Amino acid sequence: MPTYTAPTKDMQFVLHDVLNISAASTPGYEDLEPDFTSAILEEAGKLTSEVIAPLNTVGDTEGCRLENGVVYTPTGFKDAFEKVKEGGWTGLDMPEQYGGQNMPQVIGSAVGEMFSAANQAFTMYQGLTHGAASAILAHGTDQQKDTFLPKMVSCDWTGTMNLTEPHCGTDLGLMRTKAAPQADGSYKITGQKIFISSGEHDLAENIIHLVLAKIEGGPEGIKGVSLFIVPKFNVNEDGSLGERNGATVGSIEEKMGIHGNSTCVMNYDGATGYLLGDEHKGMRAMFTMMNEARLGVGMQGLAQADVAYQNAVIYANDRLQGRAVTGAEAPDKPADPLIVHPDIRRSLMEQKSFVEGARAFILWGATMIDAAHRSGDKDADGLVSLLTPVIKGFLTDVGYDMTVKAQQVYGGHGYIEEWGMSQFTRDARIAMIYEGANGVQALDLVGRKLAQDGGKHVMAFFELVKTFCKDNAGTDEVFDKEFIEPLKAASKDLQSAGMYFMQNGMKNPNHALAGSNDFMHMFGHVCLGLMWAKMGLAARAALANGTGDAAFYETKLTTGRFYMARQLPATALHLTRIQTGADTVMALDAANF
Amino acid sequence: MPTYTAPTKDMQFVLHDVLNISAASTPGYEDLEPDFTSAILEEAGKLTSEVIAPLNTVGDTEGCRLENGVVYTPTGFKDAFEKVKEGGWTGLDMPEQYGGQNMPQVIGSAVGEMFSAANQAFTMYQGLTHGAASAILAHGTDQQKDTFLPKMVSCDWTGTMNLTEPHCGTDLGLMRTKAAPQADGSYKITGQKIFISSGEHDLAENIIHLVLAKIEGGPEGIKGVSLFIVPKFNVNEDGSLGERNGATVGSIEEKMGIHGNSTCVMNYDGATGYLLGDEHKGMRAMFTMMNEARLGVGMQGLAQADVAYQNAVIYANDRLQGRAVTGAEAPDKPADPLIVHPDIRRSLMEQKSFVEGARAFILWGATMIDAAHRSGDKDADGLVSLLTPVIKGFLTDVGYDMTVKAQQVYGGHGYIEEWGMSQFTRDARIAMIYEGANGVQALDLVGRKLAQDGGKHVMAFFELVKTFCKDNAGTDEVFDKEFIEPLKAASKDLQSAGMYFMQNGMKNPNHALAGSNDFMHMFGHVCLGLMWAKMGLAARAALANGTGDAAFYETKLTTGRFYMARQLPATALHLTRIQTGADTVMALDAANF
Repeated sequence: MPTYTAPTKDMQFVLHDVLNISAASTPGYEDLEPDFTSAILEEAGKLTSEVIAPLNTVGDTEGCRLENGVVYTPTGFKDAFEKVKEGGWTGLDMPEQYGGQNMPQVIGSAVGEMFSAANQAFTMYQGLTHGAASAILAHGTDQQKDTFLPKMVSCDWTGTMNLTEPHCGTDLGLMRTKAAPQADGSYKITGQKIFISSGEHDLAENIIHLVLAKIEGGPEGIKGVSLFIVPKFNVNEDGSLGERNGATVGSIEEKMGIHGNSTCVMNYDGATGYLLGDEHKGMRAMFTMMNEARLGVGMQGLAQADVAYQNAVIYANDRLQGRAVTGAEAPDKPADPLIVHPDIRRSLMEQKSFVEGARAFILWGATMIDAAHRSGDKDADGLVSLLTPVIKGFLTDVGYDMTVKAQQVYGGHGYIEEWGMSQFTRDARIAMIYEGANGVQALDLVGRKLAQDGGKHVMAFFELVKTFCKDNAGTDEVFDKEFIEPLKAASKDLQSAGMYFMQNGMKNPNHALAGSNDFMHMFGHVCLGLMWAKMGLAARAALANGTGDAAFYETKLTTGRFYMARQLPATALHLTRIQTGADTVMALDAANF
Repeated sequence: MPTYTAPTKDMQFVLHDVLNISAASTPGYEDLEPDFTSAILEEAGKLTSEVIAPLNTVGDTEGCRLENGVVYTPTGFKDAFEKVKEGGWTGLDMPEQYGGQNMPQVIGSAVGEMFSAANQAFTMYQGLTHGAASAILAHGTDQQKDTFLPKMVSCDWTGTMNLTEPHCGTDLGLMRTKAAPQADGSYKITGQKIFISSGEHDLAENIIHLVLAKIEGGPEGIKGVSLFIVPKFNVNEDGSLGERNGATVGSIEEKMGIHGNSTCVMNYDGATGYLLGDEHKGMRAMFTMMNEARLGVGMQGLAQADVAYQNAVIYANDRLQGRAVTGAEAPDKPADPLIVHPDIRRSLMEQKSFVEGARAFILWGATMIDAAHRSGDKDADGLVSLLTPVIKGFLTDVGYDMTVKAQQVYGGHGYIEEWGMSQFTRDARIAMIYEGANGVQALDLVGRKLAQDGGKHVMAFFELVKTFCKDNAGTDEVFDKEFIEPLKAASKDLQSAGMYFMQNGMKNPNHALAGSNDFMHMFGHVCLGLMWAKMGLAARAALANGTGDAAFYETKLTTGRFYMARQLPATALHLTRIQTGADTVMALDAANF
């Protein structure tokens, strides 16, 4: 059975050596001294590796079961969920007013990665609760907040998000679910929603569904969509649970993976709902949840890649097969371990350099969210808004590829369910799809985010990279050559792509959109290149100081060199593709495919 | 439920317009006029799309069941198998002497693609039979051939290949299965084999296992491995079935995909076996089967990509979601079909250009096998031996990526088993692993095949590309720019990589092996580039002639342009990676991963 070890040391390196968080001016960061964050990460590491990870295979094998309207989660999920609640993990970064601990997002992200890696299907029950709570926090009335948040922050009640219908996912303007206003100010919600993660289950007393629907008589299309709170059990004025609401599970979907999470068809039959936020402004309210969810999903890409990588390393060290071409390395054994073989190492280095780069990227993103939320930093807000589709799309596309590579290290055993590697691949696959399929992320990036606020944020990104390179070049020739120069070259490719879009996208937007996927990927590479340059600097500084674990820092530098030399140059290929424009992409009649 | 349409027209184009097979001097090719091959392909297309494809989902959902030593295949498999037998499809390219039709491999490959695409798990029952029969044909005594081949060619008896043991897959020198010589010239085989496809089932009267084992007292390691015929039921002198042999199924593996095929743990308890080929030369005999199997697996990569692509196109035309950015294309409908969106087209074009290029590559390879087998053409034999790891490794790696892309077109529905796209991805995954994991293919290519016969075959490949470019350049400036120049550039990258290996691999072989996966992929791209240039030429000629379906040929040219402009330039990235050598790949201590 696969195992999971929480990457505490690596997280501490990113938080303190690279991002130097406790010195940041963001309110709440002043408490984030290494000892303090270490204590939290160690505790989360223990819970995730010892309690939650062992349930990952169980969840996959058993799946969820629907009987007479009741959904039973896999064996052990309920007990583990109680432990998560006891630890107060869902409320880690929620306001104290509602029972949370008011930690910054950067801590929530680090802990969240551990939960996702240990058991993605299990973690979604609390993850969606967190997202729904955030939406209520941002858009709810005081009464709504008081009614729902304490119970959701404690995870006594869980949350869901209901967008998709059978005939519409991306294009929510086609939505058919209706909301009929009632005399008491509530609404009756009627319609069917599909793909509702954690839609029904036995882990919580109540489930708070956030449901998009159209108020009768409102504007056509997406402009007539509103968001509603629809509790599974209505809540009495004293906070106790009232009658069962008309929100019921129709069936559980059979999926490729994340079997431990109940993906439900939900039927709303005149269910009582309460408007969340303004009438017809449902998309705006839902996007609070969606943006959070997109970052969380990007993290899932990294998390599955990490746990798969960890197990691939164990297998590559254990499995004896063949001899090193340069001479036996374990002559006393019948064969050398797999890890002596260059192509196995090539694969493991690809995984390792992605995972560690992606982790830094996510945590850096989280510091920007904190700066935006806690310090009202508009620039940080704009930059993280630009990077959200990159985090979601790039990290899940590449994260999935990396789980496939990790699975491949196992040879035939990778294909046998018993070994657990297939599950990582199958579970990771969903992250490329949900919360906006990655093609939609690329469209969001190129079609919307690039031009946002007059292109200010993408210019700020280029400026940031340029300044970083300028500030850190010239003191070490080798470092310049290995880290700074490749980053400059990649960033230049990205700028050239942006220039191509500007020059050609105006006359025909397809010239930009045909390259959107390539652009998202090259942007991701530049971000990871930046992260590796930052990590390389930090490692070099630590080595110069002579403090800490020299092998750890040397390994960082080697892994960074690998990324810069072998992975980052992918930007040139993406640029080549982008510069071919839309012609060959759009030339065929639909009938000729 | 997904559907499958046999690509008869496209195959005819490759066979006749591109490869011009009926004009080739290979014996048997003179019969392969367009009408004749069309009749075969139409017939195979009917059987595969109407009978075999509809069982694909059934096989995945039901899987195989082991009860009291009997393996039951999924509902409908037995009836369909009878229809395959009635049609004589397994013996299509087998000698008439044993009941076959003696067709060339190029026809067998075209038909084989259809079978694999329609239902990979089902097709493996006959595919392995074909492979085992080929090994007996190449290495068996006359008596062995007479005893086993007629029944295997008709598929009354099926075949298997038994290599892997729990502790060894790639490194078969570690094998523990023993063969004890008996007074009558037979052997008693004892040991356990795992991952045995079609190891036990209810489709045939008898199963002929080809089993690798070590004869007691023979040389150590791989040099002491011999191959044995171990029938499930012993065969009496009159050809009737005798006693049950000690070859039994221990369990069926739970796998990520190909559920319709029974992957068995096989136990040999003093089972009677008959030496096939020479003592201790088992690997040579097994490689007859393996090389055939590797080409067949490469074809599976293409086949799964094709059927997944076909369904993605249907969905992209049916599913209404969003509007074309350049203005509504279906203004009378609530939304435009997915296929109007540039990123969806980009994905579909990647799939289409891969599938059609790969099909030409496979069929071109098959003509070389025919030239080698039927005309004793040593150069063709050498070239196809060089290309075998490329066909297996590149086509299954990229084929898998393409099934993932096709699945992605479905959005959330791609993740739900009911829609069938997940199965294509899960089934395609195995092809990267079995018959030598793709890392082993890359090692075979760079570590062995490149230098084979003094590097003669790779030089012949470069010469072939060079001559092609020279012969076809200069008459059409646009064609030169769109097809010939990119092919030249890619081939030059490949040569530069080969040069790097020569210059650096001698002092440290890791410098070559660290780039083996990149080299395999760039080689694959150059082959597909060559195929697209050939197809482009053929399409241009057909358009100039004014015969046939102009839209079909125009589509070929457009698809070719897409491949040359956007996919082929990947060679430059692979070259960049290769030229970084082994340093960053091999630098880490195993303990620091």
